[in-house]
Amino acid sequence: MEFKINNECFNNALSNVSKIVSAKTPLPILSGIKIVADDSGLTLIGSNSDIVIEKLIPLTIDGVKVLEIYKTGSVVVSAKYFSEIVKKLPNYIHVKVIDNHLITIQSDDIVTNLNGFISDEYPNLPELNYDNNIKIPGNELTEIIKQTVFAVAKSESRPILTGVNMSFEENKLICVATNSHRLALRELSIESNVKGSYIVPSSSLNELMKLLGSCSEIIDIFLTENYIIFKSNTISFFSRLIEGNYPTISGLIPKESKTVITLKTKQFLQGIDRASFLASEWKNNNVNLEILEGSKIRISSNSSEVGKISETQSSKIISGQGDLNISFDGTFMVDALKVIKEEEIKLTFGGSMRPILIEPINHSSYLHLISPVRSY
Amino acid sequence: MEFKINNECFNNALSNVSKIVSAKTPLPILSGIKIVADDSGLTLIGSNSDIVIEKLIPLTIDGVKVLEIYKTGSVVVSAKYFSEIVKKLPNYIHVKVIDNHLITIQSDDIVTNLNGFISDEYPNLPELNYDNNIKIPGNELTEIIKQTVFAVAKSESRPILTGVNMSFEENKLICVATNSHRLALRELSIESNVKGSYIVPSSSLNELMKLLGSCSEIIDIFLTENYIIFKSNTISFFSRLIEGNYPTISGLIPKESKTVITLKTKQFLQGIDRASFLASEWKNNNVNLEILEGSKIRISSNSSEVGKISETQSSKIISGQGDLNISFDGTFMVDALKVIKEEEIKLTFGGSMRPILIEPINHSSYLHLISPVRSY
Repeated sequence: MEFKINNECFNNALSNVSKIVSAKTPLPILSGIKIVADDSGLTLIGSNSDIVIEKLIPLTIDGVKVLEIYKTGSVVVSAKYFSEIVKKLPNYIHVKVIDNHLITIQSDDIVTNLNGFISDEYPNLPELNYDNNIKIPGNELTEIIKQTVFAVAKSESRPILTGVNMSFEENKLICVATNSHRLALRELSIESNVKGSYIVPSSSLNELMKLLGSCSEIIDIFLTENYIIFKSNTISFFSRLIEGNYPTISGLIPKESKTVITLKTKQFLQGIDRASFLASEWKNNNVNLEILEGSKIRISSNSSEVGKISETQSSKIISGQGDLNISFDGTFMVDALKVIKEEEIKLTFGGSMRPILIEPINHSSYLHLISPVRSY
Repeated sequence: MEFKINNECFNNALSNVSKIVSAKTPLPILSGIKIVADDSGLTLIGSNSDIVIEKLIPLTIDGVKVLEIYKTGSVVVSAKYFSEIVKKLPNYIHVKVIDNHLITIQSDDIVTNLNGFISDEYPNLPELNYDNNIKIPGNELTEIIKQTVFAVAKSESRPILTGVNMSFEENKLICVATNSHRLALRELSIESNVKGSYIVPSSSLNELMKLLGSCSEIIDIFLTENYIIFKSNTISFFSRLIEGNYPTISGLIPKESKTVITLKTKQFLQGIDRASFLASEWKNNNVNLEILEGSKIRISSNSSEVGKISETQSSKIISGQGDLNISFDGTFMVDALKVIKEEEIKLTFGGSMRPILIEPINHSSYLHLISPVRSY
C-alpha cells in the first residue's frame, strides 16, 4: 500500500475515527485504525465496543485533488500514535507499507517508522440491508437526539433505559428516553418504509451528534438485527442495539389535569437553575414550585446548612385550580427546559403527587414528564 | 452592613478572589470570602495556604457609579455558594447583613438568604513595609514569570526548588528556576531600592499570572519577612515565601564550548515536539540530536514497541567541532523553546555529557540549561 495525502484532510478524517478508539482493549488490533487504499480513495475504520465508524476520503474534494493512491492495499495502524504523529506533520504526507505491517510516514525531511498490524486480522463490518431505508436531514436528526438523549438512565441497573428508543412508524419517528423518574419524547415526520422499535445506546448517539455537528446533509438509516447504521456521503456510523423490550409509555402521559399554566421558558429555566444550585445537598435536588394568588408562581429551595432562595415569577393560569405546591428534582427540570427552543412553555399538573407535563407552546411534537418528589 | 452593587462588576471581583479559596480547609472560616464595606468601597479578601488576595471595588469605575454603600461593616461569606449565587442573578444586587452573619441577597424578585461567619474571626493580613518598594510593569512581570516558572521542580523532595528565586539587585531583577536537570534564568532592568533573594512558590506565581493577564499597569512589589506582595491599583496579592537558601547557580553556566550552532526556534521546537511524542515511553523522554556534515542536524527518537522518527534540519555552525551526538529530555527542550519569543536561538554544547546552553539570538538577558541524559 502506498499513497500521498493532504495533511489537513487526513488529520480531520483520522480525528473523526480515532477519538472513539480506546487504547485499552483486550484485543490489541482493536486499538488500531484500519486503513484501506483502493481506486476510489482511502477508507478509515475505527471501533469500540458500541460503535464502528467508517470514513471515506475520496481522491478529490470540491474538485481539488487531496489524495493520490500509488498502490492499493490495507494495514491497521495504532490509533493513538499514528493520528498524533500525522497531526504534527507540516505538509503532504506520504505513507508506504512494507511487509503488510511496517509503515513509513514521510513529510518533507521527517521520516517516521511505525509498527502496524496485518489488516486481515481486523474484524469485518456488519453487512447492510439496503431494503430498510430511512432518510432524515442531519440537523433534524441531531436535534431530536439532543432533545431526548439527556433523559436516559445513567445507571446500568436496567440496561434498556440507558438507550433511546427509536420507533419507526409509517413516515414518523418517535424517540423516547426515560430513567423512570423523568421522560423525554420527540416525534418527527420522516421518509421511511420501516416499522419497528430499536433501542440505541445513549453513548453512541452522543458520539453521532458530535460527528454530525450542524451538517444538514441527508442521512440514510439502515437497520440490521443487531445494528443501526447512520450513513452520510463519506461516513458510515454503526451502533450496536440494546436488546430487550422498551416499556410502553402511552399510559404514562397524563390525560387529566388539575392545573395548567404557561411560563416564559428562559426565565423559568434561570429560576429553577438558581434554586437547584442551593438544593444540591438534597438527594433529589428538591426544588419547590408553588402557585400564588394573582397569577404568580414561587420557586424556592433551601439547604439547612447554607441558606435558602426564593423568587416569584409571573405566569398565566390557563385552567384549573390555583392552589398547588409541588417539589421535584430541579436538575431534571433544567435539563428539560434547556432543550426547548420555544419561548413559552405549558406546565400541566395532575396534583402534587402526579407527574408534571412540560410542553412547548406552538409545538405539539415533543413533551417532557417529571415525577414529583416528597418534600420534607 | 448593606450595599447595592452592579452584578457584572461584583461577579468579576468575586471570581478573582474566590477561585483561589478552597472548600476543604480545616478552619471553616477560611473557605469564605471576607467582605468589608467602608466609605471607599467594598474590599473582598480570600486566601489559601500560599496566597491571600485582596480586591477593592471602588464606588465608581471609569466615572460610572457601580456601588452604593448604605451601611458600613463586614462579614465572611461562603466563597462557593455566595459567588455562584451572585453569578446567577440578573441585575443590581442588594446585600444586607443582619446579626453580623445572616446575609440577604436580593436581585429583582429573587431573595436568597445565606448563613455567613462573623468577620472578627477571619485572620488579619500581614502588614506591609512600605520602605521596600519595587516597581515593575505588569506585562513585564508576567513575561519573566512565564519564562522561568515552568522549570521548577514538581516534586516536593527539595521544597526550595518548587519556587522561583527572585533576586533583587540594584535596578535589576533576576529570576531563576531549576529542578536540577534543567534551569531557566531571566534578567530584567527595574526600578528598585531592594537587595535580597526571595523564593516564591510556583503555584503563587501561576495564580498571579492569571490574575494580571496582559495588564500593563505598574505593579508595586513589597517584601516582609515571610511574604512578597504584588500590588496594583485594586488588587493586593500576598504570597508566602519558601524558607531556605537557593543554590548558587553562577558556577553552573558553562564558560567553555566545543560547538555552537544557531537554529530557527519554531522549526526546532516542532521537530523536538514530534520526536518527544514517540519518546514518551522512555523514563527521560530521550530525544537524540546529532550534527551531520554540511550544516545539518538530525533530531530522532525511537520506541522499541511503537516505532521511530527522524528528521533533518538546517543549522549554521558558528564555531567548534562538527561532530556531536547528544541525548536529552525532549519535553524539557520543548518547555524552554516555547517561552522564547525570538526567531532564532543559539545552542552551545560543551560535549555529550555537559549541559546544553540555549539562548535567544539578540537577547542577552535570558538563558536555559538542560542536562543531557545517557542514551541506551
